[in-house]
Amino acid sequence: MTPQALLEGILRGGAAVQRRAMAKAITLLESTRADHRAQGDELLTALLPHTGKALRLGISGVPGVGKSTFIEALGLYLIDRGHRVAVLTIDPSSSVSGGSILGDKTRMERLSVHERAYIRPSPSSGTLGGVAEKTREAMLVCEAAGHDIVIVETVGVGQSETAVSGMTDMFVLMQLPNAGDDLQAIKKGVMELADLVVINKADLDPDAATRARAQITSSLRLLGLHGNPEHAHHDTALWHPQVIQLSALQGRGVDAFWAEVTRFREVQTGNGQLPARRQQQARAWMWERIDAGLKQRFRAHPQVRQQLDDTTRQVLAGELPPSTAARQLLDLFD
Amino acid sequence: MTPQALLEGILRGGAAVQRRAMAKAITLLESTRADHRAQGDELLTALLPHTGKALRLGISGVPGVGKSTFIEALGLYLIDRGHRVAVLTIDPSSSVSGGSILGDKTRMERLSVHERAYIRPSPSSGTLGGVAEKTREAMLVCEAAGHDIVIVETVGVGQSETAVSGMTDMFVLMQLPNAGDDLQAIKKGVMELADLVVINKADLDPDAATRARAQITSSLRLLGLHGNPEHAHHDTALWHPQVIQLSALQGRGVDAFWAEVTRFREVQTGNGQLPARRQQQARAWMWERIDAGLKQRFRAHPQVRQQLDDTTRQVLAGELPPSTAARQLLDLFD
Repeated sequence: MTPQALLEGILRGGAAVQRRAMAKAITLLESTRADHRAQGDELLTALLPHTGKALRLGISGVPGVGKSTFIEALGLYLIDRGHRVAVLTIDPSSSVSGGSILGDKTRMERLSVHERAYIRPSPSSGTLGGVAEKTREAMLVCEAAGHDIVIVETVGVGQSETAVSGMTDMFVLMQLPNAGDDLQAIKKGVMELADLVVINKADLDPDAATRARAQITSSLRLLGLHGNPEHAHHDTALWHPQVIQLSALQGRGVDAFWAEVTRFREVQTGNGQLPARRQQQARAWMWERIDAGLKQRFRAHPQVRQQLDDTTRQVLAGELPPSTAARQLLDLFD
Repeated sequence: MTPQALLEGILRGGAAVQRRAMAKAITLLESTRADHRAQGDELLTALLPHTGKALRLGISGVPGVGKSTFIEALGLYLIDRGHRVAVLTIDPSSSVSGGSILGDKTRMERLSVHERAYIRPSPSSGTLGGVAEKTREAMLVCEAAGHDIVIVETVGVGQSETAVSGMTDMFVLMQLPNAGDDLQAIKKGVMELADLVVINKADLDPDAATRARAQITSSLRLLGLHGNPEHAHHDTALWHPQVIQLSALQGRGVDAFWAEVTRFREVQTGNGQLPARRQQQARAWMWERIDAGLKQRFRAHPQVRQQLDDTTRQVLAGELPPSTAARQLLDLFD
C-alpha cells in the first residue's frame, strides 16, 4: 500500500479497513529499509495534523504487579464511557532475549477483541532507542485513527521507564502492597518519574497497602516530589504525585484512578505544564535521534573505526586521558 | 612554562615550586586556546602514569548545610594523619551569574594556608560539561603532585551532583537535621547518587537528627539503595548507602565519617566495584567529550546552521515529526 492509501485507510477507513491500515502503517514505520523509511516519513508528516489530541498514559511495574489485568479493566471502563483506547508496549526484553516478559496481546482477552480498542505488542528488534522511536511513531498512527486514550505499557527492565515517561503525558508506577521493610524496592530513578503511584492488589492485605501508601508518600515528600500540605508554599496549581490503592482484579478503584488522571490533566493543562511537556518531549526526541545518528556516523567513519578499540583500550588502561582520546578521535573524524 | 617544566615542577618541585606549577598547569588546562590545548594534552598524558592513587571524594549539599566547615575540619583531620588533601569545586552558578555560591578559597581559612593542602575554586566560565572536564583534569594534576585525598565539592545547582558523582570514588550528600515533614526536599535524582548521607549540625536538635536519619534510611531502602539487614540476600560484599550524623562545627563525628569512608573503600575495592567505577567513568568521560564534539560540529555545519531554527520551529509547532526532522538535518550534515 502506498503512504497515500495508508493515510486514507487510517483517517477515513471503516473499522476493518482502518485496523488493517494501522497495522500496515506501523509495520512500515518499524522497517529499517531506506525506501520504507522514506515512505514512513511521508506518511508520518501527513498524519501529524491529525495527532496530539489523545491523552498519553504510561504505565510501568514489575512482572506480577498486575499491569495487564489493570489495563484491561481500565480499557473496558473507558470504552464504556465512549473512549477509544490503544495499548502499545515497550519491552526491551523481547529484543534482547527473543522472548518477551510482557507477552503479546492475548493477555488482554476481552480488550483485544473489542472493536474500539487497538493493541500492539512491542517491536521485537532494535535498541531501546529504536524501540522507543517506533512506539512513538505507532502512537501517532493510533491518534490519527481516532484513539483518544493511548496507553504505553512497560516492564521494569533497562531504561524503558525513562523512555515511556519521555513520550507520555502522565507516568503511572504500579506497586504491590507488601508491608514496611518488605516493600519491594523501586528501581533507581523510577520513583522520580511517577506522576501517580498505584498500589494494586490492595484487597489482599489492606493494612499493608495503607502502610505502603504512607511510606511511599513520605519518600515522595523527601524527594521533593510531593508538596507538604501543611505548608503555605504547597502550590495547588502544580501537580504533586499522588499514591492511591486499588484492586484491578476485583475491578475496585478504577473510577478513583480515572478521577486522578482527569484531575492531573486539568491541573497540568491549566498551568501550561502539559503543552510544555509535549514540546519538551518533541525537542528531546529530535535531539535524541540526531545524537544517535551522529554517533552512528562517527563509529562508521573508516579511520575512527580503525582506531576506536585501541584508543578505548589505552583509556581503560590509564595510558591516555579520556579528554585527549576524545580530541584525537574527533580529529580523525574531521 | 613548557609542559616539560610544569611536569618537572609538579612531580619533583619543592613545596613553593610545586604549588606554582600546579596553579599554572591547571590554568593552562582551563584555557580554550588551541595551542594551550595541545600543550595541555601533552602535559596530561605525561602526568597520567602518576595519577589514580588518591581517594576521590565528592561532597554536595545546599548552601548553609555546612560544607566548608566540614571540609575544613575533615581536611585538617586528614593532614594530622599524614595525608595531603586537595579541594576542588564545581560551581555552575559562577559561570552563569558571574558570582559564585560557593565563594572562593578564603572560606577555609586554616586549611587554605596549610602547606599540605591545595584548594582551587571552580573554573569561572564554561558550560557544566566544560567545567566538569577542567575539574577532572585539575584532579589529575593534584594526584600527580602527591595529594592522596582529592575532595570535589559542589552546591546543589543544575546537574553538578551528577557531574561530581561521575568523577569521584564516593559521593557524599550533606543534609540538615530538620524534623519529619520539614526535612528539606532532596533534589530530584540526587539521593540515588549518594554513597553516604551525612546529617550535619546534629547537635542543634538531636531528636530531629535521629528522625531525619530514620526517614532517609527508609527512603533509601524503598529506592532499593539500602539493603534490608533482616533479609538473607542482604549482601555484605556490596556497599549499601549509609546515613550518619555529625557536627562539623563542634568537630564531632569526623572520625566516624572517616571510618565509613575507609570501610567503603575496603568493601568496594574487595568486590572490584571501585576499579570498575573508575573504568566506567573514564569510558563515559571519553564518550561525553566525543558527543559534545560531534554536536558542536553538527551545529556549526553551514547548512545545518541555516536550517536548524526553522526545523526546530516546525517540530515544536507540530508540523514535522521529530524523527523526520532529525533525518532531514542529518542528511544536510552528510
